[in-house]
Amino acid sequence: MVAQESEDRPRIIDAIMHPHDLKALDNEELDIVCREIREQIVATTSHTGGHVASSLGAVETVVALHAELDCSPDQLVFDVGHQAYAHKILTGRLGRFDTLRQADGISGFPTPYESSFDAHPSGHASDSLSVALGLAKARDLRGSNEHVVALIGDASISGGMAFEALNQIGQEHTRMVIVLNDNGMSIAPNVGALAHHFGNLRASNLYRDRRDELRRRLAASGTTARVVLDFLRSTTGSVKHLFLPEYTMLFEQLDITCFAPVDGHNIGALRRAIRTALDSHGPTLVHVMTRKGHGYGPAEHTPELFHGVGPFDATTGEVTPSAESYPTFTDVFGAALLTEARADQRIVAITAGMEGGTGLTSFAQECPDRFIDVGISEEHAVGLASGLAAGGCKPVVAIYSTFLQRGIDQVIVDVSLAKRDVVLCVDRAGLVGEDGATHQGAFDLCYLRMVPNMRIFAPSDGLELERALHTALKLGGPFAIRYPKGGGPLVTEADEAETGEKMLQVGVSRELASGSDVAILALGSMVAPSLEAARLLAEQGVSARVVDLRWAKPLDRKAIVAAAATGAIVTVEESVLSGGVGQGVLEVLAQENLSPAIVMLGLPDRFIAQASRAEQLSGLGLDAQGIARSACELLATRGQ
Amino acid sequence: MVAQESEDRPRIIDAIMHPHDLKALDNEELDIVCREIREQIVATTSHTGGHVASSLGAVETVVALHAELDCSPDQLVFDVGHQAYAHKILTGRLGRFDTLRQADGISGFPTPYESSFDAHPSGHASDSLSVALGLAKARDLRGSNEHVVALIGDASISGGMAFEALNQIGQEHTRMVIVLNDNGMSIAPNVGALAHHFGNLRASNLYRDRRDELRRRLAASGTTARVVLDFLRSTTGSVKHLFLPEYTMLFEQLDITCFAPVDGHNIGALRRAIRTALDSHGPTLVHVMTRKGHGYGPAEHTPELFHGVGPFDATTGEVTPSAESYPTFTDVFGAALLTEARADQRIVAITAGMEGGTGLTSFAQECPDRFIDVGISEEHAVGLASGLAAGGCKPVVAIYSTFLQRGIDQVIVDVSLAKRDVVLCVDRAGLVGEDGATHQGAFDLCYLRMVPNMRIFAPSDGLELERALHTALKLGGPFAIRYPKGGGPLVTEADEAETGEKMLQVGVSRELASGSDVAILALGSMVAPSLEAARLLAEQGVSARVVDLRWAKPLDRKAIVAAAATGAIVTVEESVLSGGVGQGVLEVLAQENLSPAIVMLGLPDRFIAQASRAEQLSGLGLDAQGIARSACELLATRGQ
Repeated sequence: MVAQESEDRPRIIDAIMHPHDLKALDNEELDIVCREIREQIVATTSHTGGHVASSLGAVETVVALHAELDCSPDQLVFDVGHQAYAHKILTGRLGRFDTLRQADGISGFPTPYESSFDAHPSGHASDSLSVALGLAKARDLRGSNEHVVALIGDASISGGMAFEALNQIGQEHTRMVIVLNDNGMSIAPNVGALAHHFGNLRASNLYRDRRDELRRRLAASGTTARVVLDFLRSTTGSVKHLFLPEYTMLFEQLDITCFAPVDGHNIGALRRAIRTALDSHGPTLVHVMTRKGHGYGPAEHTPELFHGVGPFDATTGEVTPSAESYPTFTDVFGAALLTEARADQRIVAITAGMEGGTGLTSFAQECPDRFIDVGISEEHAVGLASGLAAGGCKPVVAIYSTFLQRGIDQVIVDVSLAKRDVVLCVDRAGLVGEDGATHQGAFDLCYLRMVPNMRIFAPSDGLELERALHTALKLGGPFAIRYPKGGGPLVTEADEAETGEKMLQVGVSRELASGSDVAILALGSMVAPSLEAARLLAEQGVSARVVDLRWAKPLDRKAIVAAAATGAIVTVEESVLSGGVGQGVLEVLAQENLSPAIVMLGLPDRFIAQASRAEQLSGLGLDAQGIARSACELLATRGQ
Repeated sequence: MVAQESEDRPRIIDAIMHPHDLKALDNEELDIVCREIREQIVATTSHTGGHVASSLGAVETVVALHAELDCSPDQLVFDVGHQAYAHKILTGRLGRFDTLRQADGISGFPTPYESSFDAHPSGHASDSLSVALGLAKARDLRGSNEHVVALIGDASISGGMAFEALNQIGQEHTRMVIVLNDNGMSIAPNVGALAHHFGNLRASNLYRDRRDELRRRLAASGTTARVVLDFLRSTTGSVKHLFLPEYTMLFEQLDITCFAPVDGHNIGALRRAIRTALDSHGPTLVHVMTRKGHGYGPAEHTPELFHGVGPFDATTGEVTPSAESYPTFTDVFGAALLTEARADQRIVAITAGMEGGTGLTSFAQECPDRFIDVGISEEHAVGLASGLAAGGCKPVVAIYSTFLQRGIDQVIVDVSLAKRDVVLCVDRAGLVGEDGATHQGAFDLCYLRMVPNMRIFAPSDGLELERALHTALKLGGPFAIRYPKGGGPLVTEADEAETGEKMLQVGVSRELASGSDVAILALGSMVAPSLEAARLLAEQGVSARVVDLRWAKPLDRKAIVAAAATGAIVTVEESVLSGGVGQGVLEVLAQENLSPAIVMLGLPDRFIAQASRAEQLSGLGLDAQGIARSACELLATRGQ
């Protein structure tokens, strides 16, 4: 439990205007700073929600870093940024911290647009080492001498991009410090052989005990041991692997100097380790052992729940029930996949470190042999699916739209060129709300539509998602299903009669409302607001047809031609316009020599900052009012 | 030098109908098979060109694998596939081997459409381990027991995707064999700390000598040494790192069993090592030391030249001069970047294992401090550029269009969201000819146009490329320049006067031919054939305007509106239509309420197989005749 908010005693953190103010404090005072930061994080996120557990676990690490660094000129690059709340509080954003993740408030992630202390727009895992190496090399080219530090978690460091960077960092021998925040969890508990080694280390005594014991034995053993050690030194150039935990050899082999693991909740130990690393030549790695959620009981006990959490009761840790009254698409997907998997043993589910987030928890429990969590490894996730399909399985890769950006080449080559029976379930497609710019699922329709052999379905409700999944698994071939964050009502009850037939016809849309003045061609999440827009338009005497396009690829040419007969078309999709279905509709119209008035609604050509999803959609005219307004404007233009 | 073709003695390889025929041969006969395969590879590629050096180096490895495996059911997955020629010859394709890389011939890479012996469409590096793990897991789920082998080079294994797979292979402990073909080169000599360790190993005696020496010393030392060894065993679970070369610890730490390095040109040793690995439980790695170009003097001496080479004289190894009379875009880029870099010390060049291929050899020689080769690590290449730019450098990332597919997420987040001054020089954009489907640069316009803050220029000739590069470096911000394989003439001489002014106006096209019947809006490589098309059309009495769009983003709205006034527009781009400039033009027309007749020419929604680049372009109607034909058809349609 967090200590009670102090009564009238002024907080130290309120007096910290700049991180170098920390340098005037001793370690005991820094401990108080850490406690105050924790209390602030819990107090704020209990209202705003956020990435609570990681940020709590990294408080001492961040405080120690700022106590030893001089930012700027020193540069601190966060990986992902789930650990950055303490950093925000210490760098002039305490006063606005209660606006965390809100519209016009401060971002949940580091972002240079918000503060010069944020070196990089963090958000996607494993990129901090590349960015930090770039900063360090730029420093060397300039002949400058500031420090560059990357703070990366044990899950992120297993991503392929991080390994590519580690491989070069060792070769370049550029002076920089990698702080590995090892909390033994990513979002879910870590997977992968590397994590296994981290785990072994944690389970055993620290390396220091082992080293000391070996030293004692060697001291007692006389010349022979010296012969052995001398020999080892002569052949490997190092006897370090006798003293350091086995896993560090991976880094040592990449020519990155590793220091002993340090208690990540001990300010003094952290500062000493960081100082030693900063004073070193070449690249160094400081291994910090932390506990996710440290200092706040509920987050310590259920760190996965408190990884990314909505509002909660600060005292009890009880999460405030969501106002959402519909099951999420994620939930529907998880249940539907389990149903399909019970009927077909060839179905395998793959996630990239997002078991819960993608709705696969029940699947993992019921079908552990057919559930694969590859960790933060989206490239491998898609490539693995290709191999499984080549071997006769039916892999379903559940992944967030924004993270599938890491696997586009694999979608092109390993899945689509290879024509494998792989189903991509693209979750969080569209706007994601509070996580903001780095996490928006803005591009998937574009980057999937460009790929030959790919079929793309966007369900407008849970029933459609079930049908799409069933169809994808039966049809085979490369198939993507994209659905948004959250849930929504069934868009049609008249459709219920269809329930028995789960197979969808490829490239066939469905008309959900008839109308003759304008045709709204809507996709996925935009179908429900389009239906509502049609009702608003009817009140104004405008007869609007609403077509649920269903398929982003192939498009329903017949429906598009029929829509053109109304003389006015509105297309609506929750994805960037470039390469989207709106442009696809334009292409069909051009091929058919048809020229209705047309407006394409979708995400604009800019990054969208944090706010609630509803605020984001309505701000972009992608709610019922906005769609109706666009239709009216289009009709007015045509009338001119 | 290759031995002379045997006179009348029948070749063994002519009698090999199926790889299991190899099982009837002894090692001496297999040596003859290897020689015959080498002779055939040199004879064929001297006419067709191809990936000669890698394929020559891997002949014994491939022969030994097929002698020990039983494909199918056993599965052999190639990484990249540069090593696959021997495999093609042994799997029923000797008779068609002279059609290598030709239109309607056999592909230069493994592809399942060509042969059931090709497990995967190889071509992009580092994916073989993911695919092989998928095949192995599918096997286990089916309860089957065939072998799965991945053959991967020392350059490919350093790619992030391969590491992601290794990390999971160790965890899953799935039975599969990784054969690491270590020739110490990728295309250029390897970079990275990992490569450094491979190199150390090669430079030293093999591990066996070291192990034997240590064993001798320990045997002589009595109990104390045993105490030390027992202790080590108890703490690390393994004393392997005392015996195996240091680098293998990386694999061992990932729980992949490593065997001693084996001479990759010794059939007997290879077969023994492979057999041992196949008989093992869990994942194993066989480290094969080969020499790139082995057995053919010219390729041994200049392996980089013979990595991917055009036709050459089989006797002398002299490469047949190219018929191309123009400097390539690649050459122009290399020279232009060097000129810019002499004037601006902040410019840094980055390549991902393609120093020569991207034209950076001179740059690397003259500015070694500002040249960075990250190896096959496209994700890291783009992330590194972001960091360098954040540190005040002006990084220029030169990369092939098809390989930038690996870095799209980094382009979105690390470059464009971060608004960094990064110039992406996208080489081989469009069709690449003989390398075929996996290597086509078909998608970059789509995946770059969707990215906010991105400017995209497509030079129509070398002069324009120089201007674009200069403009990109001066303007700053995310900037992509995309240009095709090969070269071409200057598209205009009238333009020469402009030569002094290198700064281009953003989003401003240029009209290269006036005309009133139809406007051809052409981009980059399509400008020259469009000018020629206009001349063909003039012969038929059609007055065609030709506009060099120059910018794929932002588009020149004014020029598009003006083009609409002709009543007929042809857009031409060498990229997929989805998300391309043609659809961008449609969007502008829709926004402007304009409805000219329009046809969009570009790459179709399917993968394009190998042929010469000219054959591919003309087959798709993307040459002067095709463009003129499309314009005539459009005008005929409008006339209806």
